[in-house]
Amino acid sequence: MKYEFMKRTIEVASKGSGFVNPKPLYGAVLVKDNNIIGEGYFDGTKAEVAEIKAIKNSTENTQGASLYLNMEASLGNEDISVILKNGIKNIYFGILDPVLKGKTVNLLREKGIQVETGLLRDECEELNEIYIHYIKNGIPFVFTKWAMTLDGKLATRTGDSKWISNEDSLKFVHKLRQRVAAILVGENTVKLDNPMLNTRLDCPKISNPLRVIISKYGDIPNDSNVLKVDDNTKTLIIASTNIAKERENYFLHKKVNVMKLEEKSGYIDFKDIVKALGKIGIDSLYIEGGGAILGSAFDSGIVNKVYAVVAPKIIGGKGAVTPVGGKGIEKMRDALVLKKVTHEIVGSDVIFKGYLY
Amino acid sequence: MKYEFMKRTIEVASKGSGFVNPKPLYGAVLVKDNNIIGEGYFDGTKAEVAEIKAIKNSTENTQGASLYLNMEASLGNEDISVILKNGIKNIYFGILDPVLKGKTVNLLREKGIQVETGLLRDECEELNEIYIHYIKNGIPFVFTKWAMTLDGKLATRTGDSKWISNEDSLKFVHKLRQRVAAILVGENTVKLDNPMLNTRLDCPKISNPLRVIISKYGDIPNDSNVLKVDDNTKTLIIASTNIAKERENYFLHKKVNVMKLEEKSGYIDFKDIVKALGKIGIDSLYIEGGGAILGSAFDSGIVNKVYAVVAPKIIGGKGAVTPVGGKGIEKMRDALVLKKVTHEIVGSDVIFKGYLY
Ligand SMILES: NC(=O)c1ccc[n+]([C@@H]2O[C@H](COP(=O)([O-])OP(=O)(O)OC[C@H]3O[C@@H](n4cnc5c(N)ncnc54)[C@H](OP(=O)(O)O)[C@@H]3O)[C@@H](O)[C@H]2O)c1
Ligand SMILES: NC(=O)c1ccc[n+]([C@@H]2O[C@H](COP(=O)([O-])OP(=O)(O)OC[C@H]3O[C@@H](n4cnc5c(N)ncnc54)[C@H](OP(=O)(O)O)[C@@H]3O)[C@@H](O)[C@H]2O)c1
Repeated sequence: MKYEFMKRTIEVASKGSGFVNPKPLYGAVLVKDNNIIGEGYFDGTKAEVAEIKAIKNSTENTQGASLYLNMEASLGNEDISVILKNGIKNIYFGILDPVLKGKTVNLLREKGIQVETGLLRDECEELNEIYIHYIKNGIPFVFTKWAMTLDGKLATRTGDSKWISNEDSLKFVHKLRQRVAAILVGENTVKLDNPMLNTRLDCPKISNPLRVIISKYGDIPNDSNVLKVDDNTKTLIIASTNIAKERENYFLHKKVNVMKLEEKSGYIDFKDIVKALGKIGIDSLYIEGGGAILGSAFDSGIVNKVYAVVAPKIIGGKGAVTPVGGKGIEKMRDALVLKKVTHEIVGSDVIFKGYLY
Repeated sequence: MKYEFMKRTIEVASKGSGFVNPKPLYGAVLVKDNNIIGEGYFDGTKAEVAEIKAIKNSTENTQGASLYLNMEASLGNEDISVILKNGIKNIYFGILDPVLKGKTVNLLREKGIQVETGLLRDECEELNEIYIHYIKNGIPFVFTKWAMTLDGKLATRTGDSKWISNEDSLKFVHKLRQRVAAILVGENTVKLDNPMLNTRLDCPKISNPLRVIISKYGDIPNDSNVLKVDDNTKTLIIASTNIAKERENYFLHKKVNVMKLEEKSGYIDFKDIVKALGKIGIDSLYIEGGGAILGSAFDSGIVNKVYAVVAPKIIGGKGAVTPVGGKGIEKMRDALVLKKVTHEIVGSDVIFKGYLY
């Protein structure tokens, strides 16, 4: 049962997805006599911590109840006294916070509460992989995603990519977008697909990630969807320091931000990009393509996690866009081998997931 | 139980894989009181039919037993009298033979034997898809197989492809080779990989498919492994009618056969290739690559079945070989969509299988 409750805790915490960055996701589940009597999660707003919400939401007397938390949180004296006053007996943590490193656990133990840690550690780590990575490195956790045909292409030879994957796979992708602080595509993708890059999910509340476009000289059509911004849907153009002043001003005038970085042999180094994004609080970056941008990202070694949808369609074409362009490696023995690989079968598509560290 | 016995019948029939082409695979299982008491299969040699083998191999009295057969076979009067004399009561057929079309079924019914057809029809059809296709069309059933990285490549930018898939996926491939009459690769694959193209399986008896190389002017190294032939490992070069006489003679001298076909705008048309192979009794062709050859095969529309191994490795490279080169299609809506798709998860690899008709 313990594992079931922690699983539920992770689900509850996930409700905050997309609203907490760069803070972590917190969920709390209160259990008495093997029944869940209260739940709470962090939604990014300055309110009580998840555990206090779970207690306040409780449908029953909390005396002797147990609390499940996906990750150790910083608790004030007031929080702790609420926990004590409500007679919470045990607390189960999935993982420790990389900054607190057990400080809260010790505090609770001193107050006589039984604390256990490490429940569903791997799942809790994955849930907050963005936060853990960002706290440690100060640069965003980088996801990549592409949808490719079974003959290894992002689009036909004419650049048509609508649609490679099936509808359920597309939904999966929108869920990913919901999770990250920023989503990045290349100039050709803007020109050919004119994407919105927002989150389209049937949810009461959605958060749109910052849309980041790499475009050295701002050479994208003025009527591109990504140039239509509002308070909830912002865009940042990563340009060369050599971008024409008028073009830059045009973007600024449209309330599109511009971040200028040095060109290095014709490219903007992805290492510089993630550093710059980290500095403005972007804890997670989701690179959607196309092939040239993904190639450049892999060449610079900044990718942490890969999602790839493979759809059983054949389109052929020697010159069609390959998912990861760039320079690439020479020998198979130097291939990047994904770790902790999982496969999700979605109709006839397969979604691969894996890590690169 | 009926389905279990037919499943076993298919397994038994498969033992003939690679030894019967262009004839079909036949398996027979004899069942009494829900126990298997005899089995037999066609091994390509002129001996008794599978059903008579099963009766002769029987470990018990066959009175009142049932016979399971994956496909209707042509039976002589002698065979039928053995069946009657041994008191076989029921016969279950998976499918009818496309030539006999129920002739044997009627014959058996006239003799008072209860016959049922259509048991595990789909599985029995797949088992003999080569035979069924070849009988109908006179051209080989064409499989393709490739192993690609998760970023859609057959090899690194330098042409290195050893190894993309894991060992278990490789074994799976060798099983496929065992099944077909011929295996085809392109000139560059011979130059870069110098493959043996034989069947390497831990089996007491193996059959090597005919190795077919497309090489317009015979421009492959003289010490290529495919040029080493013996009674069990033969090679056919498909060349242009414009191949130099000396080069052709060199091959013939090495006991490598040469089939000359017209060039059409620089290419040998795959439609001509399958017609020519069909005429010399090749009922099945397995195209292993590389990308240019597979592209040409798909462009000409002669592919029936696709296997693709996808391995979670990333190698990058804009110019690395794509699995299906050639011209390809323009619009996603015209993509070849595989049918009856199945996924086999082999460690972290996934093997897709699907049909194109
Ligand atoms: N199926 C999918 O999941 C998916 C997703 C997105 C896009 N797509 C498809 O992919 C195609 C577009 O791909 P693409 O490869 O042509 O274009 P792209 O990656 O969208 O953009 C390429 C452009 O960005 C430049 N670039 C790449 N890395 C850079 C860096 N580090 N700094 C500065 N500039 C950089 C390239 O320069 P160079 O030319 O000098 O390399 C090129 O001008 C479209 O057909 C689209 O439909 C498919
Ligand atoms: N991972 C795997 O499963 C796998 C399997 C096999 C090979 N490979 C890799 O694939 C690479 C080789 O692929 P590739 O595309 O370069 O070469 P390839 O397909 O083996 O051979 C290409 C050659 O065949 C010619 N050709 C293609 N279709 C033809 C036709 N219908 N008639 C006459 N000639 C035809 C091509 O001519 P044009 O140049 O005029 O088109 C080219 O000269 C190697 O690196 C190998 O390691 C990988």
